[in-house]
Amino acid sequence: MLKEDKLVGRIAKAARSISGRRDRGALRLGIGDDAAILSPQGGKDWAISCDAFLEQIHFLADVHPADSVGYKSLVRAASDLVAMGAAPRYFLLTLALPESRTGSWLDAFLAGMRRAARYLRMQMIGGDTTKNPRVSIGVTVMGEISRGHAVTRTGARAGDLIYVTGRLGGAQLGLELLRRKIARARNLRGAWQAHLYPRIHVKLGEWLARNQVASAMMDISDGLSTDLSRLCSASRVGARIRAKEVPSVKIPKALRRPAHRLKSDELEMALHGGDDYGLLFTVDPRRRALLRRAPDAASLACIGEITSKRQILLVDDDGTRPLRNQGWDPFSTK
Amino acid sequence: MLKEDKLVGRIAKAARSISGRRDRGALRLGIGDDAAILSPQGGKDWAISCDAFLEQIHFLADVHPADSVGYKSLVRAASDLVAMGAAPRYFLLTLALPESRTGSWLDAFLAGMRRAARYLRMQMIGGDTTKNPRVSIGVTVMGEISRGHAVTRTGARAGDLIYVTGRLGGAQLGLELLRRKIARARNLRGAWQAHLYPRIHVKLGEWLARNQVASAMMDISDGLSTDLSRLCSASRVGARIRAKEVPSVKIPKALRRPAHRLKSDELEMALHGGDDYGLLFTVDPRRRALLRRAPDAASLACIGEITSKRQILLVDDDGTRPLRNQGWDPFSTK
Repeated sequence: MLKEDKLVGRIAKAARSISGRRDRGALRLGIGDDAAILSPQGGKDWAISCDAFLEQIHFLADVHPADSVGYKSLVRAASDLVAMGAAPRYFLLTLALPESRTGSWLDAFLAGMRRAARYLRMQMIGGDTTKNPRVSIGVTVMGEISRGHAVTRTGARAGDLIYVTGRLGGAQLGLELLRRKIARARNLRGAWQAHLYPRIHVKLGEWLARNQVASAMMDISDGLSTDLSRLCSASRVGARIRAKEVPSVKIPKALRRPAHRLKSDELEMALHGGDDYGLLFTVDPRRRALLRRAPDAASLACIGEITSKRQILLVDDDGTRPLRNQGWDPFSTK
Repeated sequence: MLKEDKLVGRIAKAARSISGRRDRGALRLGIGDDAAILSPQGGKDWAISCDAFLEQIHFLADVHPADSVGYKSLVRAASDLVAMGAAPRYFLLTLALPESRTGSWLDAFLAGMRRAARYLRMQMIGGDTTKNPRVSIGVTVMGEISRGHAVTRTGARAGDLIYVTGRLGGAQLGLELLRRKIARARNLRGAWQAHLYPRIHVKLGEWLARNQVASAMMDISDGLSTDLSRLCSASRVGARIRAKEVPSVKIPKALRRPAHRLKSDELEMALHGGDDYGLLFTVDPRRRALLRRAPDAASLACIGEITSKRQILLVDDDGTRPLRNQGWDPFSTK
């Protein structure tokens, strides 16, 4: 048997326990043939998306444990489904790795991916495995949603309220801590957990789509300033954000000492930090009251409103200024 | 606007012309949002598969022109759909590349991919773009097939006849020529075309599935000896192959000079050479006569039969010997 086939066998075996679902749902044929076969049910649409997660670009070999790499590679891909309001269902894994990572590193990677799959109730249905000098991960995800209910980025209208979930900038803070090797202290657990094992708002995304509460929605993966500008550009609108309302990560006191000096303050992390995977969505003010019944309602913050003038403004104590798009860009030369 | 967004814009623009289909089919929402949205039609199953195509592993920067890389990355992924009998429909492209390849290299890559998409009548519906020191391509493909008609690898039974399409080993010969820089001569065109721009048997695959003629099917991507052993293993059977019946590539006379000495002879190339993307399938002998009406019937060759004893034998003038699995393995240390 080829080494590749043995490796595929190990991954397929792990995938059987990766399944977060008991019922077969639409799945007719999973891993092991040329392609997986799905029998879609009537009245449902499918959302499909893919995401690359590459060593030295998206994660660092000496900073990120293998189980976090496995966990995050699935969660960040599924986040795009949640941002349409779809329920995550299936995924395919393209995994290229050096032979030195086919042992314990791969086991830990698959354990992290299994944890994410159980949490999201997703099932691995296929993939491709090959050798590469650096770890290179591609995840394709599929989710189900009632026909016609997907929430795009294009529906925001002037006057709509802008909402985000959770505290923004947590993942950025976690990364800075991990890079300084001061993260694993128990009292900083919250800070690095948000970076290594992000939680996403599956139930909220589904609820917002099902009840047609969100007029536009996306996830915040590259930072609020970047992703809000993408949403506004797709909807051909602008936005006014109130700095005071932006729910920023809290930098622990222990980290305010000069020895640990961080690159950014709390608001900067919240505005530009990537990797949070919270939801960013807009709501017609007449539907605002419905949000009280939303899952995770306590995690919601209204940070501003959509404007017809196509620019993004930040209002703080000093007045109003344009909010520059400073989120994460893989092609940036910074 | 971020550099990444500009690049995505360029790829999306190319994708609009990449579309090989005029009707929207099941597609509700394509490139530009968090995920693509499909509305599957009743009575159809979906086949889905993904494939990695990596610089220095699957293609060589100094040997393979960018348009061939674009062309092959889609065709080889679609080949897995054809091997189930499905009609290729949609694809998602994950593309990681160094900044130096975002200019003319990317244009040529997209032109090659466009050529493949038109030929296969496939449409790009999503993707992900990022930076990487080496080009790393992931393609996810989706195809449609009548419910329950997909042909797996598991249905071969003792006594079934074994068929392949086309001449085997052509892509391997082409690669050896390209590596020796003697390929581009006009009189060797056929030899390198098979390697750079393979054709696949879309109509035949669909026909074999629709008419339930094939009992098991897969594509030959890693070489006949490797892929036949995978099909037999999945079906829990063995096979007997007649060397004389294996349709081998013809090595041109000009290449028989000692200066050009090739690593393998014609039969070895046919048995172990990868990258051909022909179909390998089995047929109950009582259904054999139906094959006369198959598309591409002239390209079919019956090379042996399935046996109940789980070993793969090669019969030639010297007698009968086991056929060792010597196809391409990315983890091989050869």
